[in-house]
Amino acid sequence: MELKKYSENKFIKEVNTVKTITKRNDNYPQWYTDVISAADLAEHSVVRGCMVIKPYGYSIWEKIVSVVDGMLKSQGVKNAYFPLFIPKSFLEKEKKHVKGFLPELAVVTHGGGKKLIEPLVVRPTSETIIYDSFAKWIHSYRDLPLIINQWANVVRWEMRPRLFLRTTEFLWQEGHSAHTSLEEAEKYALNILDNVYRKFAEEYLAMPVYMGQKSEGEKFPGAFKTFCIEALMQDGKSLQLGTSHNLADNFSKSFNVAYLNEKGERHYVYQTTWGVSTRLIGGLIMSHSDDKGLILPPKIAPIQVVIIPIFPENGTIMAEIEKIKKALNDFTVQIDSRNNVRPGEKYFEWEKKGIPVRIEIGLKDLEKKSVVLVRRDTNTKENCPINKVDKRVGELIIDIQNNLFSAAFDRREKSNKNVDSWDEFLSAIKQGGYIFAYWCGDENCENEIKEKTKVVSRFLPLNAEEKGEHKCIHCGKKISTAKRWAFATAY
Amino acid sequence: MELKKYSENKFIKEVNTVKTITKRNDNYPQWYTDVISAADLAEHSVVRGCMVIKPYGYSIWEKIVSVVDGMLKSQGVKNAYFPLFIPKSFLEKEKKHVKGFLPELAVVTHGGGKKLIEPLVVRPTSETIIYDSFAKWIHSYRDLPLIINQWANVVRWEMRPRLFLRTTEFLWQEGHSAHTSLEEAEKYALNILDNVYRKFAEEYLAMPVYMGQKSEGEKFPGAFKTFCIEALMQDGKSLQLGTSHNLADNFSKSFNVAYLNEKGERHYVYQTTWGVSTRLIGGLIMSHSDDKGLILPPKIAPIQVVIIPIFPENGTIMAEIEKIKKALNDFTVQIDSRNNVRPGEKYFEWEKKGIPVRIEIGLKDLEKKSVVLVRRDTNTKENCPINKVDKRVGELIIDIQNNLFSAAFDRREKSNKNVDSWDEFLSAIKQGGYIFAYWCGDENCENEIKEKTKVVSRFLPLNAEEKGEHKCIHCGKKISTAKRWAFATAY
Repeated sequence: MELKKYSENKFIKEVNTVKTITKRNDNYPQWYTDVISAADLAEHSVVRGCMVIKPYGYSIWEKIVSVVDGMLKSQGVKNAYFPLFIPKSFLEKEKKHVKGFLPELAVVTHGGGKKLIEPLVVRPTSETIIYDSFAKWIHSYRDLPLIINQWANVVRWEMRPRLFLRTTEFLWQEGHSAHTSLEEAEKYALNILDNVYRKFAEEYLAMPVYMGQKSEGEKFPGAFKTFCIEALMQDGKSLQLGTSHNLADNFSKSFNVAYLNEKGERHYVYQTTWGVSTRLIGGLIMSHSDDKGLILPPKIAPIQVVIIPIFPENGTIMAEIEKIKKALNDFTVQIDSRNNVRPGEKYFEWEKKGIPVRIEIGLKDLEKKSVVLVRRDTNTKENCPINKVDKRVGELIIDIQNNLFSAAFDRREKSNKNVDSWDEFLSAIKQGGYIFAYWCGDENCENEIKEKTKVVSRFLPLNAEEKGEHKCIHCGKKISTAKRWAFATAY
Repeated sequence: MELKKYSENKFIKEVNTVKTITKRNDNYPQWYTDVISAADLAEHSVVRGCMVIKPYGYSIWEKIVSVVDGMLKSQGVKNAYFPLFIPKSFLEKEKKHVKGFLPELAVVTHGGGKKLIEPLVVRPTSETIIYDSFAKWIHSYRDLPLIINQWANVVRWEMRPRLFLRTTEFLWQEGHSAHTSLEEAEKYALNILDNVYRKFAEEYLAMPVYMGQKSEGEKFPGAFKTFCIEALMQDGKSLQLGTSHNLADNFSKSFNVAYLNEKGERHYVYQTTWGVSTRLIGGLIMSHSDDKGLILPPKIAPIQVVIIPIFPENGTIMAEIEKIKKALNDFTVQIDSRNNVRPGEKYFEWEKKGIPVRIEIGLKDLEKKSVVLVRRDTNTKENCPINKVDKRVGELIIDIQNNLFSAAFDRREKSNKNVDSWDEFLSAIKQGGYIFAYWCGDENCENEIKEKTKVVSRFLPLNAEEKGEHKCIHCGKKISTAKRWAFATAY
């Protein structure tokens, strides 16, 4: 009877989540796009390369911002805001920097109805405009360290846009610090990498990451050293999730950021810069989701628990649900009481949105004083007495968070390979996952590898073991520091 | 002894707050600039018209965002994010809209190293790009109302920039909604105006505001009706703090935002848009601050209480201060334990930053088991037993918040004038404050008033009393709806 009533209801809302999701094994890139669409996270805009972040997608970004912002502040970071526009001549002050960003710039040539004397660049990153301020703000060693962050939009012209992963405009935070010594700068860059980025990725996004250093050819334009966190996606490719750079005095010399030390001597500061962006959402999707759609780790899910009444119009059930919601006030709970959508469709919809725990309750459950709990990661169902729901949901939330991390960790470890010959390297690359190989680190050698395989080095793992004497896997040159680099196909 | 020691200390930090502040009566605009500089809130950037919001200024913005965001969400608003760039042809779809914004646009003509086929405009506001999405998202009456907000930066080319009040780039939120009827749209626009903007301005910023409707000549380009909140500044000028527009179907017709009603008939939606910006900080500064510098209402102050030890190196005092801080854990408390700055300089510095309550504690106070409390709004000092500090600070916080509102309210009421002749009008304008006069509302009449006096109407107060028969104060035309409009010199 109920079913008939529902199907007769001409007001059934056309949920956009009835879309079929391509299977990962059939077409991974299409699966990624389908998961985003089915969960209603984002879409391409009419402006080529730019995305519209839809409310549900944006609520995940709000959670990320809230947690990362708190973690940064606990590291002494203060937020500020700098102009969107940068005079083109500023970018040109640091030669490697401008060379790296020139092909990706959006340029404002007209303002207020007139042609500008000097074109303005829409910030692709803000080192140059921020360090112009640093030069004014820093006078003595007592002004150091200066640690500033901004949450902002940036623009890098993108020819092959992919939602969240590569878009012309994206949202990010960029932190910038100035220190009295190279050692202190290095320490701070690594501190953010480890105590904010790695910690956030692993403990909130449930994504195991490697911390590593980039090769000379792959580092940030203008940096002395670039550090990164990278995670393995389900298709065996590596995704760079965040970077932290030791800029040494490369920028402070160009922007005249100097201080007087205790003896009254003038010195250039040593700087760092570090950022994570909306790309984190792309990584999150690709790490955990399955053929049914999005899977979100509970600690980052905007909604952690959804409660679905089997007969929503029944007052007794709704009263019980309100009680359950109250008992679950440590969690973010959504009650789906729409009465023009069938329960089965609701399950389907919330599955696609990746809600960690679903609670189903009907009249029969009510008679038995129990509910049905379904966890999204394993799709396991269980009955639970109503008076134990809060305790059990708490256990599930922790367990799902841990399980997602373990699954991603095991997947990565299983696909890791050490290789010791060029032939092994070539066949390993095709299989996916990280390949660890002795390599010379030389920029020319890297370019040759790229030409042959389309692959570049990902990183030299921090604290990589140094052992024995080795030759470069590609050029055969003897290597001074015998450490294995990580290679992988990358996003 | 102590004084000598401090003055001998070659490490005394040069606080940038030793700057002298011009008196309000001597030069009000310079006073405004000085208060901002002395409190270290913001500064002009090298990019003409754009400002750098410094950490302390940004922390006030973060408080504003956090409260307003919560209030908007409680009105059913969901956040999303739309592209920074808008195709120029989009703006041109609504004729009044493009006419209004054309002179203020920043235009991107080159991207990714190439000249663009169609120039992109940096958003001055996002109606056009957002309603392009609305057209795709809205199908049936079941998708309505759709209520979306974004926190974003916008750009309007500014020839006479003033920090926070008028800058080429500024930060704001812009909300956009779509409804099935004109009445519902009107109701929602007024709901945001009253329950979010007025409430926030009055209850958090301690700024009494008028809610009113703009004249035909002063409304938002493309709007059917524009509503506003305006507040009187200490120099007798009016500042528009926020606007909420009923767009009727002006944009939905241009962007084809339509829905099918229950009968399957196609109708255009009725829309609203509403926003507040970093301009709120400008209003906040000008409402409460005095010749000593910034004064912040406790409910928006990033730091509510500062504790200053008279002898910072004394362990007993610091231990007591930590206890006091614990007792004050309902408030945001900063301990200033720098030992290279004299207490007097610290008082001076925190005064300029507008911290509502200062606690001073020295050895003598400790002996008497008391502290000195100083409130920023009245500069009143009082002794308070240590075990009653939490209670007393709680009272002060409430009292300061209320007192700032009352002072601003009284100032406004005192300067309000009803005028009934053109001569009275002219002399009243010079005196400052709001002038209430019967006026025809005609656009030509308004232009003539503007030419003669440089003043335009501010608003028709909502719920203005309609009484008797009257003639226009300027053109003498008989008025159909006899309501007094508010006039004032404006920012």
